[in-house]
Amino acid sequence: MGSSSGFHHADHANYASILSKEETLEQLLLSYEALSDDQTNWVCNLSNASSLIWHAYKSLGVNVNWAGFYVSHGNEKDTLILGPFQGKVACQTIQFGKGVCGTAASKKETQVVHDVNKYPGHIACDGETKSEIVVPIISNDGITLAVIDIDCLDYKGFDEVDKKFLERLGNLINKSCTFK
Amino acid sequence: MGSSSGFHHADHANYASILSKEETLEQLLLSYEALSDDQTNWVCNLSNASSLIWHAYKSLGVNVNWAGFYVSHGNEKDTLILGPFQGKVACQTIQFGKGVCGTAASKKETQVVHDVNKYPGHIACDGETKSEIVVPIISNDGITLAVIDIDCLDYKGFDEVDKKFLERLGNLINKSCTFK
Repeated sequence: MGSSSGFHHADHANYASILSKEETLEQLLLSYEALSDDQTNWVCNLSNASSLIWHAYKSLGVNVNWAGFYVSHGNEKDTLILGPFQGKVACQTIQFGKGVCGTAASKKETQVVHDVNKYPGHIACDGETKSEIVVPIISNDGITLAVIDIDCLDYKGFDEVDKKFLERLGNLINKSCTFK
Repeated sequence: MGSSSGFHHADHANYASILSKEETLEQLLLSYEALSDDQTNWVCNLSNASSLIWHAYKSLGVNVNWAGFYVSHGNEKDTLILGPFQGKVACQTIQFGKGVCGTAASKKETQVVHDVNKYPGHIACDGETKSEIVVPIISNDGITLAVIDIDCLDYKGFDEVDKKFLERLGNLINKSCTFK
């Protein structure tokens, strides 16, 4: 889908405002599948995935202030390191088990946090964040490869619908990317 | 500078609106140096650098629609692959010598393009882009490691001042990052 067809890569980040949440997140998954077709480079794919997530939530009117990834591969054992994202500058490293990201990574369970200030050991990269969802990306061998992290300026920004679709995105990322 | 001091990582992306262009871009360089201190992971550092660039230009009132990196390391020879960025979804790969990014990478010279539609062989990832600056990041051995790429929705978005500061950023990135 090159520019000659009139469709540009950037158009994947355009979501119609009339779509329901489920329709928007389904479009996100379809766009990710199209963009990662024939592309296994994890940095490339997670960079575009960050953009898809950011623009999907903006189109839904969710007040996201950060959307991106922390990755575990290739680094010190049990440390997450900052990956591609959209939003303001972020903490570079997070220990497994610490905060929302570290807990999702070590427990291998999605964390939906309605109020980050009530979360034990919350790590504030941005003092304005009110709620957060973190979804672990698990390899076929059961290893935490990375986490999807989205922050919101409002309380209760995310729910079980987000969890369901973002876990599907995590599965697509595991299938499409070579983490090396 | 953890959250206990009241200063969060995200605050690096806050630039005062009263600053001149030179002061804002100088602050960008200082923030990059602080953030890359003790951190050599190129994905982590380029992800935060994308955020610093994006928010610096937004604070200056420059209508940027994309700010980020294409990298050459670890990939097929003479191919750039998409790295961390802020903005809409982007083309995954660019051949050396093709378009503004590929030309900066192969000539190892910054390209300041006032009107992308007049640039021979321009690759449109986003049909709305009007002007662009691309700065190569060159290793100590003279190899193109990556390029800094910033797009603008207005004509003549960038000039020699941007070139000067972004080339300094490119040097800092070469010194601080291990591309492997």
